[in-house]
Amino acid sequence: MATRKPVIGVVGGADVEAADESAAYELGKLIARRGWILLNGGRDCGVMSASARGAKKVGGLVIGILPGPNTRGSSPDLDIAIVTGMGEARNVINVLSCDVVVACSGGAGTLSEVALALKSNRPVILLGWTSGAPLAVHRESGLLQVADTPEDAVGAVDRILSQRR
Amino acid sequence: MATRKPVIGVVGGADVEAADESAAYELGKLIARRGWILLNGGRDCGVMSASARGAKKVGGLVIGILPGPNTRGSSPDLDIAIVTGMGEARNVINVLSCDVVVACSGGAGTLSEVALALKSNRPVILLGWTSGAPLAVHRESGLLQVADTPEDAVGAVDRILSQRR
Amino acid sequence: MATRKPVIGVVGGADVEAADESAAYELGKLIARRGWILLNGGRDCGVMSASARGAKKVGGLVIGILPGPNTRGSSPDLDIAIVTGMGEARNVINVLSCDVVVACSGGAGTLSEVALALKSNRPVILLGWTSGAPLAVHRESGLLQVADTPEDAVGAVDRILSQRR
Amino acid sequence: MATRKPVIGVVGGADVEAADESAAYELGKLIARRGWILLNGGRDCGVMSASARGAKKVGGLVIGILPGPNTRGSSPDLDIAIVTGMGEARNVINVLSCDVVVACSGGAGTLSEVALALKSNRPVILLGWTSGAPLAVHRESGLLQVADTPEDAVGAVDRILSQRR
Repeated sequence: MATRKPVIGVVGGADVEAADESAAYELGKLIARRGWILLNGGRDCGVMSASARGAKKVGGLVIGILPGPNTRGSSPDLDIAIVTGMGEARNVINVLSCDVVVACSGGAGTLSEVALALKSNRPVILLGWTSGAPLAVHRESGLLQVADTPEDAVGAVDRILSQRR
Repeated sequence: MATRKPVIGVVGGADVEAADESAAYELGKLIARRGWILLNGGRDCGVMSASARGAKKVGGLVIGILPGPNTRGSSPDLDIAIVTGMGEARNVINVLSCDVVVACSGGAGTLSEVALALKSNRPVILLGWTSGAPLAVHRESGLLQVADTPEDAVGAVDRILSQRR
Repeated sequence: MATRKPVIGVVGGADVEAADESAAYELGKLIARRGWILLNGGRDCGVMSASARGAKKVGGLVIGILPGPNTRGSSPDLDIAIVTGMGEARNVINVLSCDVVVACSGGAGTLSEVALALKSNRPVILLGWTSGAPLAVHRESGLLQVADTPEDAVGAVDRILSQRR
Repeated sequence: MATRKPVIGVVGGADVEAADESAAYELGKLIARRGWILLNGGRDCGVMSASARGAKKVGGLVIGILPGPNTRGSSPDLDIAIVTGMGEARNVINVLSCDVVVACSGGAGTLSEVALALKSNRPVILLGWTSGAPLAVHRESGLLQVADTPEDAVGAVDRILSQRR
């Protein structure tokens, strides 16, 4: 296991602004360039497809954890599609399978993944937003961090991974 | 289905203040007195056991959706224990199975249930706390409401159920 | 927990012969008459709806563990609908939540529930069929039994529950 | 998706004979040599670890779908560990994520995966055993096939994949 490549989760909305998609695309590229595996929710929309496209652009490996019972509607940039047929329960798998989760802009689904990650003690980086009072205790402990740019987010991931070695 | 009794979910922390347990106990009583079924996460601690105890005190029916692979550690006040063996993924079942979710004080796990409920279009009442900016859009739509007391929370549930008839 | 009512699972096909539906209906009645809770897959077809109808006919309590993300297509005879949104993964919940599982006639889905029950050490009664060589070891241990009639199946359940007291 | 590599599932017991482990090891090698991705249950025992070791020996890519909430007890030969925390419910993911499933020797858990695969219309090859009467209808349709050796099993997989192109 010591030699397994880090898996970095990217979560975020299915329906986001163009600027958020650009940030997710950049994030995907930066993750892949570090040699990390990118894992996301696998659908062909929003932060999911943008981050997958960015990672593939620079030759990365992309895994999508799909909510439906087959691969319909999945991003064309996935190397591996994990088919769960479990709807939103696949959010749990998204966060448990990652070394660090980067949360881009999104709605209730994205917030559920942030909360589930913290509940299971996975470090989370919020990219360009903050989660408010209910998770303040995790900001204090450092398990939850905030970054302004994809570069900053990847820098934070790097520090977390370094501390583990 | 028209004749099925309403199922009201109560979510909240496993490790909360005495005042929060008292509120959960009151909430359980009020839910049972209306003739509604109480559904929660089923464990023998915090908001889960307090709300179950309140409901049973007045003869209600209580269902617990357990995270483990058996009934160990479950509240003694459950009438029915649903055993999932799915860990936090059972949070999805908690919220999908309810007509309305009342969220007492809690941490990341509770916030995940609030977010998952809203994502699946289930109405949520926050009892004694607010969830901050990320869910503001659901406050505006009315899917997410805030109540100060168990009585207020049950009043809000009543209004939601009435609108459906 | 000592006072919780036994929960008896009834599994079986969605599309079965009339004789199989009759047997499931009888089985549901017999389970309810003993005061046990009937738990099944909750859909409005085959063994699921027939067993629920039988149990309700004599005033029993029926719980359905539904595969979809809402109650559409559920049996009208459920007292409580547990909504999982997890497709076939709900089969695991069906068997983990029961004290004993009775498996009526069915196909691959039913066989998966028999196998999952045995894997998790839940006793199984096959009603009117046998499962063949792969599960022979569980026939020998007594965890898997065979019954010819609903009466025999309920008798076998009774003996299993008695041994536990 | 047309360019995604085929994913071949290998299921089988955690505690099997040495000959069964050898067959699983050979099977893993043959799958990897064809350039297919090997997916299994990820644990460090029986058919899971043997097939992973075989695939890695010849440079293949191996994905493990783990039942627990972290990577403890996982095979050292996984390239990617998907952490579900869902116990046996992960069996559903194992089979849904594969183009074809090869089932080596095993017990009730393995039989559950065979049944879940067929229920979801995934082709299954039984390696060195037969499943008996309950699944005979799938033998007749060709969805379920039997092979005597790892070479024969991989030949059957090849034919199934060719028919899809």
